[in-house]
This record gives sequence, structure tokens and C-alpha cells, in this order.
Amino acid sequence: MSNKAIRLADVAKAAGVSQGTASNVFSRPQIVREEVRERVRAVAKEMGYNGPDPRGRMLRAGKVNAIGVVTSEPLSYFFNDPYARVLMEGITEACDAGGAGISLVSSQNREELAWNINSALVDGFVLFCLEGDSRLIELTRERTLPFVALALGFEDQSIPAIGVDNIAGARMMARHVAELGHRRVAILSLPFADDRFGPASMDDVHAAIYATSSDRIAGYFEGLAEFGIDTAKVPVFETQNDGQTTRAGLEYLFSQAEPPTAILAMSDRIALDALDWLRQRGIKVPLDVSVAGFDGVPEAALSSPPLTTVAQPIAEIGRRAVKAILDGASPGYREMLDLELVVRGSTATPKN
Amino acid sequence: MSNKAIRLADVAKAAGVSQGTASNVFSRPQIVREEVRERVRAVAKEMGYNGPDPRGRMLRAGKVNAIGVVTSEPLSYFFNDPYARVLMEGITEACDAGGAGISLVSSQNREELAWNINSALVDGFVLFCLEGDSRLIELTRERTLPFVALALGFEDQSIPAIGVDNIAGARMMARHVAELGHRRVAILSLPFADDRFGPASMDDVHAAIYATSSDRIAGYFEGLAEFGIDTAKVPVFETQNDGQTTRAGLEYLFSQAEPPTAILAMSDRIALDALDWLRQRGIKVPLDVSVAGFDGVPEAALSSPPLTTVAQPIAEIGRRAVKAILDGASPGYREMLDLELVVRGSTATPKN
Repeated sequence: MSNKAIRLADVAKAAGVSQGTASNVFSRPQIVREEVRERVRAVAKEMGYNGPDPRGRMLRAGKVNAIGVVTSEPLSYFFNDPYARVLMEGITEACDAGGAGISLVSSQNREELAWNINSALVDGFVLFCLEGDSRLIELTRERTLPFVALALGFEDQSIPAIGVDNIAGARMMARHVAELGHRRVAILSLPFADDRFGPASMDDVHAAIYATSSDRIAGYFEGLAEFGIDTAKVPVFETQNDGQTTRAGLEYLFSQAEPPTAILAMSDRIALDALDWLRQRGIKVPLDVSVAGFDGVPEAALSSPPLTTVAQPIAEIGRRAVKAILDGASPGYREMLDLELVVRGSTATPKN
Repeated sequence: MSNKAIRLADVAKAAGVSQGTASNVFSRPQIVREEVRERVRAVAKEMGYNGPDPRGRMLRAGKVNAIGVVTSEPLSYFFNDPYARVLMEGITEACDAGGAGISLVSSQNREELAWNINSALVDGFVLFCLEGDSRLIELTRERTLPFVALALGFEDQSIPAIGVDNIAGARMMARHVAELGHRRVAILSLPFADDRFGPASMDDVHAAIYATSSDRIAGYFEGLAEFGIDTAKVPVFETQNDGQTTRAGLEYLFSQAEPPTAILAMSDRIALDALDWLRQRGIKVPLDVSVAGFDGVPEAALSSPPLTTVAQPIAEIGRRAVKAILDGASPGYREMLDLELVVRGSTATPKN
């Protein structure tokens, strides 16, 4: 016999009390006489009734009170990527506050991802996605549930989205580095497109499908140009935001006749990998070269030297995304948050 | 029209090919002539058929290919607790390897937790639980799905469980500290029971409902006794594994006439909070007092000084728990993993 078949009314009847009294036993036990309370509880237990469903009201409204969090990366991404982890802290805090559960939805395989999105028992989705990759958006739209994309640079303005002002953030960082006196600046960038890395031409930059990358480049260039730096000559190396392609980028930059005195890394992950590589090569930071990150993950404060970076309000983005979904995120939902320049020990005046 | 209603057979018929050919278009496209392939794909697209369900076989066997991970802490625990985070890395790695999804199931409210466990669309559960708290076990058993508890010390030996040899691990650490020459040793313990903290008597220790705590105490006492230390006189302060109660414990220990020269902290979290408190008080580690942790979370390697600890194979516990569930964890499943002593800079010979 399934527990779900047992209703409060059945318990009340079997215990010989009114339905109101039976209800009070579970919701306001202090107002029920002990003898009655014990009898109703004993009957309920015997019948396999676990008490009134605290979510009954929501279920009647067709809600399950859970959020799906979707990525086309493996599930382990939520726990081993520093940025994703802080975002998830914000997302779970907001879910805890609303008593909502979470399903982690993932797959690198499109068909499996479609199945996972379709079968998730949730009221809406938070999408970890890149602007150029519309798969997640397409697959999610078919569910016709509220969703919020964690990235702003979509051409389609009807996509509900939250993110940061990447152009302004990158401009702040470029100004900081230029104000210190750096003129030989290089950029280690996030990918402009999939499965590609290497020195990027201006054509590559302009053809970027990931708006986060092209916005940050635009901001860097604006900031550098203000100090008279010819941005057409600033080396840009496209990484895949991992150790291997970051190291390839550094090999490239430091094999040039005039290596950079400052590196603008477009993520803290790239910057932290760069610090490791530079240490191994005996190149001192910030004495020989300054390194600047982007994102403000907790690890950036703990590196040696601690990393100068542009801090996103990462957890706040997660909290607001959940709130927007629980509020029923309308198609026009758009929110852009500000970034902060955080100066630490990895940037300084150039030697000469 | 729902996509689910469209079957491969419908697509094959509409495209005028055999069902085998239609199937090959999606599973082995390289063996199908291009013209046929394009025709079948065009028809499939028009009909809204997204390809064969990669989980069809499992679904027919009544499986959804997802794991529920359950805690009676808030959901944010999975992301802000260092130990839980590393466990989740192992759990998600094993899920990724098996193509399985994850639902995070949580609530501090018993009725809500029951509802969340009952409504989770999963094939089994990993339970983050303490041995003395049988709620999670009881609620989960009602689902009659495979589950594995991440703790070994249950009296009920039919509970499928995985964990570590806490007695042996604690004994190793006590020996290490005693071998360095420490004789005034104090213990900052994990809770023996809920909602309580303060100096613990031997009666409190013996009445512990959390076996992890009593096993570690037993191991510490065994190791210390081997060096002639009277364990009846070893101060034990029960914390709630948080900063506030850890600080209360340190205030207590350092207000004694003879403060300890070594502190055995029963978790890295307690030990790391202790390092902060000691630094603020100007008490030098390890010069004035040695501090030893337990668990081996990543943060323990990064503290100042780096923490001597007993390392659990945390991610491996998670991977094995998932594997056991995907294999259908039988009631007799029990697995005990070994611990390692990791000596770093927080323990040293006492001054005098």
C-alpha cells in the first residue's frame, strides 16, 4: 500500500476524531490533549501516514519547488571549477531561503542533455552558458518553464539573463596596468570560439561568438588606448581557459623579441596557471612581469603573490538568478551587475 | 504535438526507409549513404524527432539514471563545506563516468525532507549522515531504493555504508604527537550529541551517539596511553564543528593553569579555526603549541602553517558510494577505507 493513498481524513476517521483535531495533531500539537495526540499519532503510524504534505499548496499550484541548474560541462564542473562553485553557493543559499531543491542537469552529449532537461522535475532553470552556444537556450525553451541565462551577451534580447558589465570591468583593469606605467601589454584571452587556441588576429576577435570574450577585449583596448597604446599591436593569445593552452600562450609571448611587462588574463583561472608557469621559469611576479586576472574567485586571494583581479559579485549573481526564477522570470528579464577592481600583489610598476 | 509521441518507426515510415536504416542514421551515420541520411534527418526534424533516447534501455528497465544526494543540512552545505565539496567531486566524477544525473536533496525540516526524498526522481541515494541521527536512514528506507550511508558506525549492520577506519587514524595522530614529546595534550572534539558544547566528561564520551566522534576519541586515547599518558586527565572539549564553539574551547583550554602544548582537533575545520584564534592571540604554532587536524581537506595544505592532519580518501569515498548504488548496493554492503598521517608544519617538538 502506498503512503500517498492515506489521507488525513482516513487517519481522523480511524482514530475517531474530527479532521480538524487530526490536523492540529500535526500542525499545532501543543493545543491537542496528550491522550488524543498519542492516539492519533499511533493510528497514523500504523496506517503509514507521514503527516500533511508541507508542499501541498504549492503542488496544487503545479509547482514542485525545485530549480534545475544546467551545464553542458560534466557534473564535476559544479564542484571543481572555482567560479562555478561560488555561483552555486549563491544559488543554493537562495534555494535554501525559499525551501527549494536543486537538480544538477548536465551532459556533453546533446541528446542526453535534451533528455535530462526534459525529464528534470523542476519549476525553472538556471543556465550556465556561453553566449555563442545557443544549444542550452534552445533545449530549455522547449520546456516552456522560466529560465535565466548566466551571461548577458546574447543578440536575442528576449533571453532572460543576468551578468556583469564586462566592458567596464576590463577597461578598469587596463587603466590600472597602464597607470602603473606598462606599455608592453599582452592579453591571454578566453576562447572566442570552440576548440581553438593560438595567437588571435583582429579578425578572429571581431568574429568572436562568445560575447564575454569580445566584450572584455573591447574593454581592455579602450583602457589601453586612453594611454596612447596602439592596440593593433597588443598580442592576443586565445586560450581554452585551461592550463595547457595557457602555458602554450606564455611560451608564445615569452619567445617574442620583446616579451610583455604586463599580462591581462581574461580569467583568474588563466592568471593562476600563468603564475605557476612563471614561477617554474624563474620569472618573478610582479618584479619581471605583472599579472592581472578577472572574476575574483576565492583562490585569487590565496595565490603567491595574491592576484590583482576584477571581482564579479559571483554569489550575488546566483542568488538573483534563483530569485528571478522563483518570481517567474519574464522574457524581458535582464540584470547587469557592476564589477570591482581588486588590487593585490601581482601587479606593480615595470622595472625600467 | 509532444516530441515524445514521435517514434523512430514513424520517421522511418515517413522517409520511406526501413527502421534499421533510420536507426543507423542516428547511431552509425557513416554507414548510411549521404542522400538517405539527409532525407531521414530532414524528415525527423520536420516531425520534431530528436533522435533515439540514449537512455531508452535503462528507462525500460525502470531506471532514470540519476542519484540523489541527501543531507539534513541546507543545500549550501554541499558547496561551502570543504569536506562535502571534495566528496561531491568524487560523487560527480562517478556520475559523469556513468552518465548519471544528480539531485541534491536537503532540508532541515523533517516533513519537508521526507517529501523531498519521496519525490526525488532517482535510482538511489547517497546519504550524508551522522551515525546517531537515524532520520535520514528511516526516511530513505521507505523509498526501497538502493542507498549508501557515508559513515560506518551504525549499530544496525544491515545499513549499506562506506567510511574510514577512524580509530586507526586517530591512534596514528596521537602517536605522532606523543612521539614528538608532547605530554600535555588536549582534544577539541566533534559533537558527541546535538546542540551541546563544552568540557566533556568521560560519561559524555561514553554516551556519545555519534560513532565517528567516539571512535576518534578511542583512537586518540589508545595512542596516548601507549606513551604512558593518563587519558582520564586529558581535557576534552566538545565543539559543534564551527568557529564559535572552537573559540570557546580554546578560551577554556588556555585559561587552565597548565595549557596544552598540543591540540588534537577532530576535524580540519576545527583545526583551521584554532589556527586563526591562536594567531590572533599571538600564540605561535608550532613553537608554543602544536595543532593537528583530521580529514585532509585541500584547505589544510594552504593554511599558515600548513596543517598536520589525518587524510581521508575523500573523493574516493564518493566515487565508491556511487558505484555501489549504480551496482544496486545490497543491504550487506560495507566498505572501510584506510587513512594516512600527513605531517606538515603545524606540529613540532614542544619548547621544554
